[in-house]
Amino acid sequence: MAEVGKEPIRDIAHLGAVELFSPVPERTLWYFRDLLGMEVVHSSDRSAYLRGYGDYATSTLKITAAERPGVGCVSWRAVSLPALERRVEAIKARGLGVGWIDGDFGRGPSFRFHDPDGHLMEIYHEETRYRAPDHLRSTLKNLPMKFTGRGVNVRRTDHLALLAKDVAANREFAQETLGFRLSEQVVFEGGTKEIGSWLSSSAVHHEVAYVVDIKGGNGRLHHFSLWVDNRDDVLRAADIFAENGVFIEAGPSRHNNSQAFYLYSREPGGNRIEVYSSSFLIMAPDWQTVVWNEEERGTGVYWGGALPASFIEYATPDIASSTPDQKVPAFPML
Amino acid sequence: MAEVGKEPIRDIAHLGAVELFSPVPERTLWYFRDLLGMEVVHSSDRSAYLRGYGDYATSTLKITAAERPGVGCVSWRAVSLPALERRVEAIKARGLGVGWIDGDFGRGPSFRFHDPDGHLMEIYHEETRYRAPDHLRSTLKNLPMKFTGRGVNVRRTDHLALLAKDVAANREFAQETLGFRLSEQVVFEGGTKEIGSWLSSSAVHHEVAYVVDIKGGNGRLHHFSLWVDNRDDVLRAADIFAENGVFIEAGPSRHNNSQAFYLYSREPGGNRIEVYSSSFLIMAPDWQTVVWNEEERGTGVYWGGALPASFIEYATPDIASSTPDQKVPAFPML
Amino acid sequence: MAEVGKEPIRDIAHLGAVELFSPVPERTLWYFRDLLGMEVVHSSDRSAYLRGYGDYATSTLKITAAERPGVGCVSWRAVSLPALERRVEAIKARGLGVGWIDGDFGRGPSFRFHDPDGHLMEIYHEETRYRAPDHLRSTLKNLPMKFTGRGVNVRRTDHLALLAKDVAANREFAQETLGFRLSEQVVFEGGTKEIGSWLSSSAVHHEVAYVVDIKGGNGRLHHFSLWVDNRDDVLRAADIFAENGVFIEAGPSRHNNSQAFYLYSREPGGNRIEVYSSSFLIMAPDWQTVVWNEEERGTGVYWGGALPASFIEYATPDIASSTPDQKVPAFPML
Amino acid sequence: MAEVGKEPIRDIAHLGAVELFSPVPERTLWYFRDLLGMEVVHSSDRSAYLRGYGDYATSTLKITAAERPGVGCVSWRAVSLPALERRVEAIKARGLGVGWIDGDFGRGPSFRFHDPDGHLMEIYHEETRYRAPDHLRSTLKNLPMKFTGRGVNVRRTDHLALLAKDVAANREFAQETLGFRLSEQVVFEGGTKEIGSWLSSSAVHHEVAYVVDIKGGNGRLHHFSLWVDNRDDVLRAADIFAENGVFIEAGPSRHNNSQAFYLYSREPGGNRIEVYSSSFLIMAPDWQTVVWNEEERGTGVYWGGALPASFIEYATPDIASSTPDQKVPAFPML
Repeated sequence: MAEVGKEPIRDIAHLGAVELFSPVPERTLWYFRDLLGMEVVHSSDRSAYLRGYGDYATSTLKITAAERPGVGCVSWRAVSLPALERRVEAIKARGLGVGWIDGDFGRGPSFRFHDPDGHLMEIYHEETRYRAPDHLRSTLKNLPMKFTGRGVNVRRTDHLALLAKDVAANREFAQETLGFRLSEQVVFEGGTKEIGSWLSSSAVHHEVAYVVDIKGGNGRLHHFSLWVDNRDDVLRAADIFAENGVFIEAGPSRHNNSQAFYLYSREPGGNRIEVYSSSFLIMAPDWQTVVWNEEERGTGVYWGGALPASFIEYATPDIASSTPDQKVPAFPML
Repeated sequence: MAEVGKEPIRDIAHLGAVELFSPVPERTLWYFRDLLGMEVVHSSDRSAYLRGYGDYATSTLKITAAERPGVGCVSWRAVSLPALERRVEAIKARGLGVGWIDGDFGRGPSFRFHDPDGHLMEIYHEETRYRAPDHLRSTLKNLPMKFTGRGVNVRRTDHLALLAKDVAANREFAQETLGFRLSEQVVFEGGTKEIGSWLSSSAVHHEVAYVVDIKGGNGRLHHFSLWVDNRDDVLRAADIFAENGVFIEAGPSRHNNSQAFYLYSREPGGNRIEVYSSSFLIMAPDWQTVVWNEEERGTGVYWGGALPASFIEYATPDIASSTPDQKVPAFPML
Repeated sequence: MAEVGKEPIRDIAHLGAVELFSPVPERTLWYFRDLLGMEVVHSSDRSAYLRGYGDYATSTLKITAAERPGVGCVSWRAVSLPALERRVEAIKARGLGVGWIDGDFGRGPSFRFHDPDGHLMEIYHEETRYRAPDHLRSTLKNLPMKFTGRGVNVRRTDHLALLAKDVAANREFAQETLGFRLSEQVVFEGGTKEIGSWLSSSAVHHEVAYVVDIKGGNGRLHHFSLWVDNRDDVLRAADIFAENGVFIEAGPSRHNNSQAFYLYSREPGGNRIEVYSSSFLIMAPDWQTVVWNEEERGTGVYWGGALPASFIEYATPDIASSTPDQKVPAFPML
Repeated sequence: MAEVGKEPIRDIAHLGAVELFSPVPERTLWYFRDLLGMEVVHSSDRSAYLRGYGDYATSTLKITAAERPGVGCVSWRAVSLPALERRVEAIKARGLGVGWIDGDFGRGPSFRFHDPDGHLMEIYHEETRYRAPDHLRSTLKNLPMKFTGRGVNVRRTDHLALLAKDVAANREFAQETLGFRLSEQVVFEGGTKEIGSWLSSSAVHHEVAYVVDIKGGNGRLHHFSLWVDNRDDVLRAADIFAENGVFIEAGPSRHNNSQAFYLYSREPGGNRIEVYSSSFLIMAPDWQTVVWNEEERGTGVYWGGALPASFIEYATPDIASSTPDQKVPAFPML
């Protein structure tokens, strides 16, 4: 990102909000509100809008009733109006623009586009800062909302992982057109086969990951991830999921990539949700992408239980293989 | 920082390194190496160079033998060579430049300057990335150095707090000349008396704080702070300090400002050192500075033991009051 | 306890249940149920019966409406019916018996008595084992009740601390008549002034403490203590109390006595409640009581904020001094 | 254990010490001393004697050079001399006595015996209480030794798990002859096939477990377990093992049996070692053994990675199957 003499693009501030589809929205809401401890701030006919207690934006998660689970619109916040304009021009130049909308709940004018794999995204700058109602006001002036102590009580959204038929194409789009840093990569077969790429617009290790869709689908979600401050909070999440019949797919374990401590569960609608802590910050302006080959990547787990086969086979929406299975020599875990 | 239509300055990437003076350098080294678990990577006649296992730079802490404790040079890394040039020009324009040096161990050409209060600083871009020797190589490819499990085993440097006769002047310099974000502030007497200001060039809550020097000194250090990933690590630090006769001045407690969980001790040379975790990230490009007045500020502690009087009276080097004591109506804690 | 040739008494198994008085029972219930996460299992006209998720007995805490806060009946479970008989005989022989009752909710025949200071106690053997209703059934077969993840979610009761005009007399009663082990002691003035004694009938460090009542009252409560498994849970309790306006009197800090990590708050009724973790088990049959003198005792805090004056001055019910203040040379903290 | 009218046997206080054999004693010592943070207190020609910082006995682990890994002598402390006599008589009556020895380092006269499966054990009462040398003296008067903060820094020994050809016979011996409580059991095939039994003489959940030896061996060790106070310490152990090339066989995960949070590794000599926390105490004098059938037992893991096949196939010393494999319908994990 930071060649000497070339100024890096830093027009996107951070991941803004993620929309998840659910065929059982009430149950999905129970999972995010009653177990993860998020708060509902708004609702419309088919959608509920939620937030973590530490998110400064009004809403960072939108749950929308749909026939099948998966990811809806992924929103990115630009650092300024000029930055927004610059990114819109770049996206249009790539021919991936959809057009402007007024802005979903809590956000100003937003430009919608697709990534090369077809995931719907948008970029915006203006937004409504959250003001907690009295019963949710924190006693900490710098905390946007009360820490309620309900269930896992995730602090904020962290990142999402998307599947892509062509990881390289999507990764290049994120780097070149959006200006993201490439934090880490898994590349097999002597550097020729890009299995997964982890990218970010901020100091957060990755805000989006692209991982190969071994079933050859399009626009699918691997997982959405929420942050807790301590590893012990991840363990507590495991206790809460186990007591409430939530399927724990993997973890608690530690990733080699990102170094984070994690727990993967499935919310009742079928989407894979990660409770996540202790990833490292990347603040080097000339970060050298860490690239893992087959041997170095191993199982993708630094320590803790191995990832199950479902971890590469299942994504939302779930599909039958649309193309002959690609051979993936090892687990491209996230 | 981000007025609409005005692009923010983001030329400094992060705090690079801090130099601490110690009248008992061997004992100070024992504290940072044997108790905090940092690693010595280099030494010269009068200085030892250390690092945290998670720091990507070669050295982030320099301990220098001196008659009295205090802070030496504070180094800031620019995001690029053009960014370095821009900041050097701005500093010169303010009349605070000192001049170029070749660069201390691990860093390229560095431009030295003073902040308005007289603390010595420098800005640089080029640096040597750390390569661990065999016995310190981590089994994690993305970790620059082995996690040795020795003592507190701090991950990385986080921030430092400096005293200043005139907080506003130094805060403005950091904002206007260096391009820092003003994260939080304590302002008393109806908004007229600036007690403390917390600033950062990155998503880290603050990389430098300026707090009023009630003794009217110049160039003094309030504390230097090191990061651990979990609150339990802070508690473990308390156990280790208590067993080794290290003076714990305050904590473990939780700040209201920054929300961080902390422990203040004094290293044998006399400098105040903080073990720190769980502060929140600031990623909003239009962050609205949180300003605390007397009542809101309270004791500066969200919960946990109150801060002792020494917390505002003592800094390094320790001095007798050089001016009549300023009346500070409440603790300007950090 | 275990002189060679003399078999120790081990007739009491553990602390069974504690009754607390509250002038604001609804608010007190809110504290224990909504913040501490205990469960209400029964109620009568003036009392609510609660339990921790890990307690095997049906109810371990009874909250009773009363004019003033304080402790009601303290129940001890005998290891067997013969053991119950032996202790009843011993209590009668001391002239402190009150008589048999049928047994409060969940317990069989119970013999009531007073300790020398006048605290009401009872001893019983038979009890109803808790069977969770469907919605509170745990997915862990060996856990009596679901871990709900509500608030602090304390696991179980741990101990209580009682004030006494004459610590030695009450301590001797607990040792000689009930058969408790004397775990630790604070004795001042060259071993002549017994300030506090910590006793237990089990491997738990102490199940009851007697501490000198500096106001010369009778039958008063210093605090009641609830266990959590990890130190991080204590910190989480501080967050929850701070957000809900609960007065935190001391901690999070670490005791020297018991080594435990603690947080003292006041429930709305006025009783001092401790959230407690990491005390050490005592399994030595010939445990040598650890005795602390003035100098060794220090502030009673191993690390963390000092205990406030209220910690020795306040107990429930609160009283004006009924006798000239005893001089206590240092804090007899628990 | 506690039938009404029948007084329970409580003659054994707790597990005293465990001897482990190692073919690479220096490497095994490195594991226990440098990684687990135990302290060497004594050594003889072929053995080193170690302790945890919280153990009150002088030595709780003996490492002995041997051709093959495995367990040597397991020592139990009697609560008194009369209790010791009673147990010796009971053991002799069962025909399993070996005879008196003077006592190994730190212990008085000890009576050696075998359990029915042939594991060597001994029972004793007198022992030398540990007195730390100056450099290892704790600043906590009630802590026998300084918390050094080295590596995992386990607090104390917790339990061991032994394989047995006939679990029922060994379990009955522990209950009837030694007076242990049967905490939990795994029994398959409609209650006819005893797979594993967890027993204790104290409030600790289990001090010894007997699990079926599917290879039909004798006197073998499944694992030895060491306690840490917080779950975060278990995670830290995983970090330390991963950085030092120690094979992590399973975990960090949570047992259903005992509810404990655990990590299984292999020390360099080949013995399986568990770092263990958060098991529940059993203080009920009439504890009703929790019995798990095939379905309830499941994988033995409450949450976290599944146990590998090696977990039932491997024990020390490792042997080829001496009898046709017994069919074990599910994992008899500990």
